[in-house]
Amino acid sequence: MKQSLTLIPTMREVPSDIEVKSYKMLLRAGFLKPSTYGVYSYLPLAKRLLTKIENIVREEIEALGAIEISLSTLQSHDIWELSERIHHFKDELFTLTDKDKRDLLLAPSHEEVVTMLVRDEIKTYKKLPLILYQIQMAYRDEKKSRTGLLRSREFYINDIYSFHENEESLSATYERILQAYTNILNRLRLNYHIVDADSGIKGEIQSQEFIIPSEFGDTIIVKSNESNYVANIEVAKVTQNTDEIKEVQKSLEKVSTPEVKTIKDLCLYFNISPESCIKMLVYVIDDEFVVVLVRGDHQVNEFKLKKVHNATFLRLATEDEIIKLLDCSPGSIGPIKLPINIKVYADFAIQTLNNAVTGANEEGYHYMNVNPERDFAINTYADLRYIKEGEISPDGVGITQYIYGHEIGRVIKLGTFFSEKFNANFVDENDNSNPILMGSYQLGVSRLLAILAEKYQDDNGFVWPTHLSPYDIHLIPINREDEVQWNLSTELYNILSSYHFDVLFDDRHESPGVKFTDADLIGLPVRVMIGKRANEGIVEVKIRSTGETFEWAKEELIDRLNEFFRTNSYN
Amino acid sequence: MKQSLTLIPTMREVPSDIEVKSYKMLLRAGFLKPSTYGVYSYLPLAKRLLTKIENIVREEIEALGAIEISLSTLQSHDIWELSERIHHFKDELFTLTDKDKRDLLLAPSHEEVVTMLVRDEIKTYKKLPLILYQIQMAYRDEKKSRTGLLRSREFYINDIYSFHENEESLSATYERILQAYTNILNRLRLNYHIVDADSGIKGEIQSQEFIIPSEFGDTIIVKSNESNYVANIEVAKVTQNTDEIKEVQKSLEKVSTPEVKTIKDLCLYFNISPESCIKMLVYVIDDEFVVVLVRGDHQVNEFKLKKVHNATFLRLATEDEIIKLLDCSPGSIGPIKLPINIKVYADFAIQTLNNAVTGANEEGYHYMNVNPERDFAINTYADLRYIKEGEISPDGVGITQYIYGHEIGRVIKLGTFFSEKFNANFVDENDNSNPILMGSYQLGVSRLLAILAEKYQDDNGFVWPTHLSPYDIHLIPINREDEVQWNLSTELYNILSSYHFDVLFDDRHESPGVKFTDADLIGLPVRVMIGKRANEGIVEVKIRSTGETFEWAKEELIDRLNEFFRTNSYN
Repeated sequence: MKQSLTLIPTMREVPSDIEVKSYKMLLRAGFLKPSTYGVYSYLPLAKRLLTKIENIVREEIEALGAIEISLSTLQSHDIWELSERIHHFKDELFTLTDKDKRDLLLAPSHEEVVTMLVRDEIKTYKKLPLILYQIQMAYRDEKKSRTGLLRSREFYINDIYSFHENEESLSATYERILQAYTNILNRLRLNYHIVDADSGIKGEIQSQEFIIPSEFGDTIIVKSNESNYVANIEVAKVTQNTDEIKEVQKSLEKVSTPEVKTIKDLCLYFNISPESCIKMLVYVIDDEFVVVLVRGDHQVNEFKLKKVHNATFLRLATEDEIIKLLDCSPGSIGPIKLPINIKVYADFAIQTLNNAVTGANEEGYHYMNVNPERDFAINTYADLRYIKEGEISPDGVGITQYIYGHEIGRVIKLGTFFSEKFNANFVDENDNSNPILMGSYQLGVSRLLAILAEKYQDDNGFVWPTHLSPYDIHLIPINREDEVQWNLSTELYNILSSYHFDVLFDDRHESPGVKFTDADLIGLPVRVMIGKRANEGIVEVKIRSTGETFEWAKEELIDRLNEFFRTNSYN
Repeated sequence: MKQSLTLIPTMREVPSDIEVKSYKMLLRAGFLKPSTYGVYSYLPLAKRLLTKIENIVREEIEALGAIEISLSTLQSHDIWELSERIHHFKDELFTLTDKDKRDLLLAPSHEEVVTMLVRDEIKTYKKLPLILYQIQMAYRDEKKSRTGLLRSREFYINDIYSFHENEESLSATYERILQAYTNILNRLRLNYHIVDADSGIKGEIQSQEFIIPSEFGDTIIVKSNESNYVANIEVAKVTQNTDEIKEVQKSLEKVSTPEVKTIKDLCLYFNISPESCIKMLVYVIDDEFVVVLVRGDHQVNEFKLKKVHNATFLRLATEDEIIKLLDCSPGSIGPIKLPINIKVYADFAIQTLNNAVTGANEEGYHYMNVNPERDFAINTYADLRYIKEGEISPDGVGITQYIYGHEIGRVIKLGTFFSEKFNANFVDENDNSNPILMGSYQLGVSRLLAILAEKYQDDNGFVWPTHLSPYDIHLIPINREDEVQWNLSTELYNILSSYHFDVLFDDRHESPGVKFTDADLIGLPVRVMIGKRANEGIVEVKIRSTGETFEWAKEELIDRLNEFFRTNSYN
């Protein structure tokens, strides 16, 4: 490809508000262009890279015997009401109304529509198992979307849906897809953790995630410093809460606490640590108000809360709702003398507290010397918080460490949640009707592009491995106006192309400095420069990854390049 | 592919309200599944067919030197305001609002976003020309969308955008893309007309459409019965209006016409023909009310009207607007004594009318003996109507015939409309800044699938040509339970696959009748049936297109099949 014919708008300066490492370099190297907030256009180099990733994904998935389809992106709102996922995604769904006032949405995933398809077409165990997949755009109105392709609102994703007559069959396919995704990440030379996770879908049997470790990641996984234990923090169990030395229970005391609104304020005011505070939060769970208590230094884990309550949907109550409910603003609320009959969940750590501090449900007042059970009732104790670094690992071996990473994929044994909602039943060998068991599997393709962009770069630009690079070779005449250099360059362009190298030929009228800077940014594995020794038939070759340079004669070039690509092949 | 592993839900009965030939067969043969109104999911066979079409499109376009990109589908409403195309598409745009109240839409095409991209990145003639393309989903809230993939609201399309420093360069690329599209349609063995058209975009230099002739088509093209003239009816000029024999002008007469609302009513009431009536329509053109007069038997051509008025946007006035404007309902309006100062356009055919009939602008009254100029003023005479069959051909040679067809693609020399709106300028060799010239080109990919589905079928199902067929060979053991047949079938499946035939292996436990009916519906070019003579190593082969059957020995099968596919190759 002649560089003058394509569009690679490299940048010398990236807007200073762009901090995400992958996004920054995708902009600098002319791969990506923001279109509207959190939405991007893929420029020619990114499109080539995307196609390479897609081919690897497709190969591994086709090898499973999965069948490619393309499910509609525009979907009826109704089917999302039926699955109740409309509540799960909340305002992260893009919804719209057509000109005849039908409610539609842009699908972030396709469980509903594929379940309906299978319900209509699969009636008997003879047609099971079935594995369907697609690779296409999906949509999600992400909260954090200034991160380039890590969390774009229009994203390219592979999803697989599998259908089974029994759990054995589901498990077997689940394992095979887990392996296929593993193969894909291995072929991309990415490190990853496979961790237990929680898809948030009711009735799921099992789910796991693929996390690519990265200091820039927004997912926290918990690992033991001594065992192989690793899990998404969402599901990491807290097995032991510190046994506080119980003081003698003192008398409850109400204290005026003007201006105290947060746990931090409270600690300063009373000169105590957050471990001595009871933090109360009010949730709306499936339209019911619920109180949740955790220690002042702990954070509520909503995934755990959802499971404990067997909830479909939960959210924090708004300040207005709390004031209406408790006649007190959030800064002063507490579990003592709640003005209404309301369910109280407490984290296990609350059990061991005594003489604690908490809000008095009266504007500007808190209680001291609060003792659970004595001073207020608790409906249910449960593990309701995120584990902290340094605590005993959930498996009991070693202590907990945090690792940050990017979630790149997930595999879920859905069970019968969707098939029950949509009446997707099959008749088994004994003529009994049963709901079809389902699995659902996602691998982020444009997110993979971002992760690869984060990994394969140095200060000067991208450093693509041979099997992912948008082109193999960057061919650069150093002086475009020098006839000897130019002639040798065009000759080599033709020869290299005839040997099936993908060549990016820098035929632009630019200075050598501009061309080299651009070449570094673009990051092709090999740069062939035609300069002063063109008259001798000698070219200079630079390896992007190592910085090594060679002078090779025209005649040996093909052999040398073949040798390089052979020894640096990853596929 | 084992048929038991894929999803081909053939149907014996298609819902009776489905009339479109292509859609009906895509449903019957298990290629397509409606998802929501006017939106479809592509099942495995359709996805394979789509990929084959896409590959042909991609090959021809890449051969041009066009560069693949992927522009965002989710786009800001603002840029469509700026281009004013928001008015052009009206309620055919899917619009939505994100959770932060930004106005977005789903793009039906990408002129705005690609112009902005090029504006930001291309500053000099040195980087021109540039040809960018993509193949991806686009969205349009179509009026008629119960037609399957002919007018689906979510559709797969190829679009190309080209950028130039002068019209010569634009024209050269335009011709090359016209040729590439021609090549694609030739490779698909489709008949087509390339006709002059009107893209509706202001300032366009030229546009042409590819029309596939079909009695089921909703586009009308006009051709001469004697010359090569052919054009979309939108642009077919009326060159000659009948010279009426002028009667002596009679006196204007107002007549009470209760219940007369339409031209048809009028003709019955006065016992005249529509040729003697003046039909008046009220349009809103760029926020201005305008009156348009055509003869009673003629239809206003809005494309011509738009050009004459140099309009951005027009629509018929609503009944309420007309009543408010003229104090008279649409059934009785006419050009005499218009109560307001309003621009009056008349089709040339009005010029030759005398003693005509028209509405009196008074509820339930019409005028007789109406004579243009004498009885009412006309601002502009112009060619404002659709040509009728039987009239003199626009090129003056022969008479006009109508051909119905499907529009499958269009090529447009846009000129500088978008670059002026978005300030996409370049500096030329003389250091002058000029707007970039643009071209835009679309070929409907999912619509092609529908057109192929319409063409390649008989009463029993699809009849795919070898190069488009989802699989090459349908391999069918007649009795699945017969061990000899089954063993030979699996052996042949392995052998055929090893020779790189794409085989669909009907391994289902179904009766021969069901399998044959399904095989006819699916329509693969060759059916290999393993039946009673399996013990002799003899199979039966049926050619789908001709119905010919052969008995071939296992040993000769590969040679025979190679021979068949060689002599029936289209690529």
